[in-house]
Amino acid sequence: MPRVAVIGASGFAGALCAAIADRHPELELTTVTARSDVGRRLEDVYPRYRVALELEEYDADRVAERADAAFVGYPHKAAAPVVRELLERGLKVVDLSADFRLDRARYERYYQPHEAPELLERAVYGLTELHRDAIREADLVAAPGCYPTAAILALAPLKGLMADAVVDAKSGVSGAGREATQSTHFVSVAENVNPYKVEGHRHRAELEQELRQDGITFTPHLLPIDQGLLASCYVRTRAELGPEELRAVFAEHYENEPFVELAPDPPGVREVRDTNLCRIHATVEPASGRVLVFSAIDNLWKGAAGQAVQDMNLMLGLEETAGLL
Amino acid sequence: MPRVAVIGASGFAGALCAAIADRHPELELTTVTARSDVGRRLEDVYPRYRVALELEEYDADRVAERADAAFVGYPHKAAAPVVRELLERGLKVVDLSADFRLDRARYERYYQPHEAPELLERAVYGLTELHRDAIREADLVAAPGCYPTAAILALAPLKGLMADAVVDAKSGVSGAGREATQSTHFVSVAENVNPYKVEGHRHRAELEQELRQDGITFTPHLLPIDQGLLASCYVRTRAELGPEELRAVFAEHYENEPFVELAPDPPGVREVRDTNLCRIHATVEPASGRVLVFSAIDNLWKGAAGQAVQDMNLMLGLEETAGLL
Amino acid sequence: MPRVAVIGASGFAGALCAAIADRHPELELTTVTARSDVGRRLEDVYPRYRVALELEEYDADRVAERADAAFVGYPHKAAAPVVRELLERGLKVVDLSADFRLDRARYERYYQPHEAPELLERAVYGLTELHRDAIREADLVAAPGCYPTAAILALAPLKGLMADAVVDAKSGVSGAGREATQSTHFVSVAENVNPYKVEGHRHRAELEQELRQDGITFTPHLLPIDQGLLASCYVRTRAELGPEELRAVFAEHYENEPFVELAPDPPGVREVRDTNLCRIHATVEPASGRVLVFSAIDNLWKGAAGQAVQDMNLMLGLEETAGLL
Amino acid sequence: MPRVAVIGASGFAGALCAAIADRHPELELTTVTARSDVGRRLEDVYPRYRVALELEEYDADRVAERADAAFVGYPHKAAAPVVRELLERGLKVVDLSADFRLDRARYERYYQPHEAPELLERAVYGLTELHRDAIREADLVAAPGCYPTAAILALAPLKGLMADAVVDAKSGVSGAGREATQSTHFVSVAENVNPYKVEGHRHRAELEQELRQDGITFTPHLLPIDQGLLASCYVRTRAELGPEELRAVFAEHYENEPFVELAPDPPGVREVRDTNLCRIHATVEPASGRVLVFSAIDNLWKGAAGQAVQDMNLMLGLEETAGLL
Repeated sequence: MPRVAVIGASGFAGALCAAIADRHPELELTTVTARSDVGRRLEDVYPRYRVALELEEYDADRVAERADAAFVGYPHKAAAPVVRELLERGLKVVDLSADFRLDRARYERYYQPHEAPELLERAVYGLTELHRDAIREADLVAAPGCYPTAAILALAPLKGLMADAVVDAKSGVSGAGREATQSTHFVSVAENVNPYKVEGHRHRAELEQELRQDGITFTPHLLPIDQGLLASCYVRTRAELGPEELRAVFAEHYENEPFVELAPDPPGVREVRDTNLCRIHATVEPASGRVLVFSAIDNLWKGAAGQAVQDMNLMLGLEETAGLL
Repeated sequence: MPRVAVIGASGFAGALCAAIADRHPELELTTVTARSDVGRRLEDVYPRYRVALELEEYDADRVAERADAAFVGYPHKAAAPVVRELLERGLKVVDLSADFRLDRARYERYYQPHEAPELLERAVYGLTELHRDAIREADLVAAPGCYPTAAILALAPLKGLMADAVVDAKSGVSGAGREATQSTHFVSVAENVNPYKVEGHRHRAELEQELRQDGITFTPHLLPIDQGLLASCYVRTRAELGPEELRAVFAEHYENEPFVELAPDPPGVREVRDTNLCRIHATVEPASGRVLVFSAIDNLWKGAAGQAVQDMNLMLGLEETAGLL
Repeated sequence: MPRVAVIGASGFAGALCAAIADRHPELELTTVTARSDVGRRLEDVYPRYRVALELEEYDADRVAERADAAFVGYPHKAAAPVVRELLERGLKVVDLSADFRLDRARYERYYQPHEAPELLERAVYGLTELHRDAIREADLVAAPGCYPTAAILALAPLKGLMADAVVDAKSGVSGAGREATQSTHFVSVAENVNPYKVEGHRHRAELEQELRQDGITFTPHLLPIDQGLLASCYVRTRAELGPEELRAVFAEHYENEPFVELAPDPPGVREVRDTNLCRIHATVEPASGRVLVFSAIDNLWKGAAGQAVQDMNLMLGLEETAGLL
Repeated sequence: MPRVAVIGASGFAGALCAAIADRHPELELTTVTARSDVGRRLEDVYPRYRVALELEEYDADRVAERADAAFVGYPHKAAAPVVRELLERGLKVVDLSADFRLDRARYERYYQPHEAPELLERAVYGLTELHRDAIREADLVAAPGCYPTAAILALAPLKGLMADAVVDAKSGVSGAGREATQSTHFVSVAENVNPYKVEGHRHRAELEQELRQDGITFTPHLLPIDQGLLASCYVRTRAELGPEELRAVFAEHYENEPFVELAPDPPGVREVRDTNLCRIHATVEPASGRVLVFSAIDNLWKGAAGQAVQDMNLMLGLEETAGLL
């Protein structure tokens, strides 16, 4: 049974990685590290996850002794050096940061100079529905951002057909991470909905790269919920599509996908809470002829930790859905 | 001091009308009627509004004896006959339903055969920022729907300049009214966000009529908040507008408007909670050249009762802002 | 592998029973019935539970053909006749209503004349931590109410030691069931906390019966959350207990209990969300010498469906924790 | 018209003081100061309050030039020196911190050495319902804590009659202040209810001092709401009280109080949201003979800023309710 570690397990995504790995029937979670809360058992920080391991300081050699593969849950820039150290020691790595999601030019335009550019060639963008075969072969996979996950799954079936697209995305607060700030203060969020970074959120880069389409409008909004993300997508297609034709495009595209569900109605995010599902509803608005696609995920599952485990399953030759149903 | 009545004061919008009228320095609230809760004091149904009047059964003659003007808070179709009765008795009327918002053709396409078509000519669409002078002269004003209020105020400055527009609108649950249904059940709404009626919500009719533009996409979403509404608008303009130019268009359009604020950042709905304000932020997305306009209101205030009082102030020759600051 | 059915699977507790049974490694869920939503697949009503079975009308014979045991998720009074029919056909039954939780005198004082009094003698109160052995032998088990579950687990270690006790209990809205009422309307619940039925909630009867102590004060409060229940208990003991002594009493009482956790700090209900755990913290308030016990559960899990599965596991000779970790 | 200043107007309570003062018909708000956000207009920090003044650095002389009275919204310990400076310059002061609420012994037991003990004799505890006459004469008033306000108003009518009392108190997050911490992070609070500081919260000191009763149990809980506070009080009286007798005690005690309402049912905190009201329901639990008192306030209004303005009105010889209805 492959042994895995989670580096950065005190954050929301890392902790959930650890929880899924811990219950996973075909993985053995041996090590959890963190930059804060070292010495506490993970189940004291996240009681409902019930992971009894103690959070340790990160040490590459110790991790390498104890694990065959690792999830890295550090912020971007901090992740790259750790990923390099683990790869050098022969581990397979799923990185949850942005460090290996983009080609170098895009990364450096949206983030900063890259800390480990030599690894970019080996990295695969970890959206299984787009890159399943490459992920199976990879030793470094970059789990996608939460917003791009929902938006790309909504729009991928229309790749090549789109003339223009708007993605109005709404996310729960866990997507902003565990850091306490004015933006994540309960009183700022409750009874509110707030657009933010509307002139250029970094996640746009992933949309453009993966959909190969420039000029997609992407605006994130913060919702007063903890988990859940909805992408409402508005698409002008090059040629008009009827509703039946549209449904056929989506049905064919997502046939046999274990975690994509085509829903008869626009999905609410509750429908996918604490699951690795992406629920999608596509339709044509009669009054405008525009294609509407609504895509709901749990930002911590399919938008982060669940997707990361899905990647890891493929990288280790396990059943893709293992531990995720 | 003009005497006013509220017909249908047990619903969310009617109750707030009564509360604002009750504290209003230049109105005397004499009568509140309802179809449910008759015999209870309004302050027992809505304690924080502190309106001590008792809810009575509606009787046109009694209302006419006691009031010079009335707010009608009935659902569409039920409102029209009541409005007719009150007009016949010489009252000025602000109707909060859809019955007098639309021309007959639009109304009958989106709703049903009209109950009082002969009155449509006298009715003015009660968005003060668009029809201030006509409202001053009117004896029948139709307070706009909550979604159209936010969306029309966002897009009105661009009238004539738009090539294509998408309105992604998000509303709190009070917009769905006081009726208990599966959709308004706490467990359906909490930790959720849900698009609904995406193939043609009736409020679209108001957008098309007032903006004189067909093919606007309009999709409502239900938020886990009680009060508040955000319209996120995505516009392709006929000719490209720079950000400064755009700001100038909005600044000029809304100069001197007492209830429209141009915000330096995208507004959250908390910023306007329990106020009659509409806060708007307009910008150009650099990556796409698209115009983004975000418009936040409290759906019960500027989207219903506050707007209705603003209308009434004008109809009665009072200061437009009286009772609303 | 034992085959099970869920009768009344369209309500919150019944649906979760079905979901847990469906994923349970040692149960086969064959049948789900309901009084509403017949003909729909359960996963269309509760997408995140992903139970593909179709909701059928209840028919005792058909259920008996297909199942060895059943969960009954009907309201009290409606449950008793169904329970009788299934027992007559040889099924083991866990009933989630109040019908078989109380002795006849208590039941008829708090509810109404009993529909199946002849079965009361066979029924076991399904709080495993109190009646584990009897549950193993029973063919009819009454899963406890959500409030009593938290309160009894908090107070059971102090049985015989209490002079006086107050239980201030706070529950999420799912405890009130799926029916849409003014009380469960989002706008009634959001930004609110509301004591209700403070002069005698029916769940008090279970406290008195199981703790064998009269005069316990019990007041429920409704919280603006969907799942979760906290019982804050204030106890005057007959003889004073020091904090260490108190901790020892609880530690001994709950040693080896798989679903009771003694927490170092007062638990929040988030800590047990979507788990079958009861987390308890007991301490002595220095200023008053009073014993404080805080007990947190997920009202749908340990307070209903999870507990019911725990009961069923015992009745069927399975591992008590099967399907619940 | 008296001129007032708010020192510390960037916090929740200070900002609301400024908002109430700004709309107050008989006060002129001239100055707002803060330790953060200096240079921003208050309405940019709290848009819905619409206070156009700019936040300045605190300077005692400048404040004294511009104001006859001041609200001090600093944390305890930081408040005392500022209060001294303003008193020395002849201003009347309402302090919202704990610095002048307690006698010296209690203060130093619960907090730290006092920064301005010489002023304690002049300070009046600002619960108007208990100390109205003294407040009228005072130049230094300490606005009570939010928890004590609700609890003392609930229990004051029973002063001298109580044998034993438990206060289970529940507060919205704004009571914890504007600082961003793990405890106020949205994800910590949402879908949660959490007891905290159960072994001795500092607010207990105010209860003991004002009710002159030791051994009251007081346990605070954090609720997932922004504003609102409920105190559920459980009292054993020395002699048994019948329900009618109890109601008479409360009715007599609170006759003519403008901000205390006796409610026919246990109040929810929504009922007093954004008001200066305290709504109280007292009853006798039949099964135990215990007296139950439920008391609801808005922690930012009657629990802080509203009460402070009520105090100021009295100190300045204005109508007690001015600006608060």
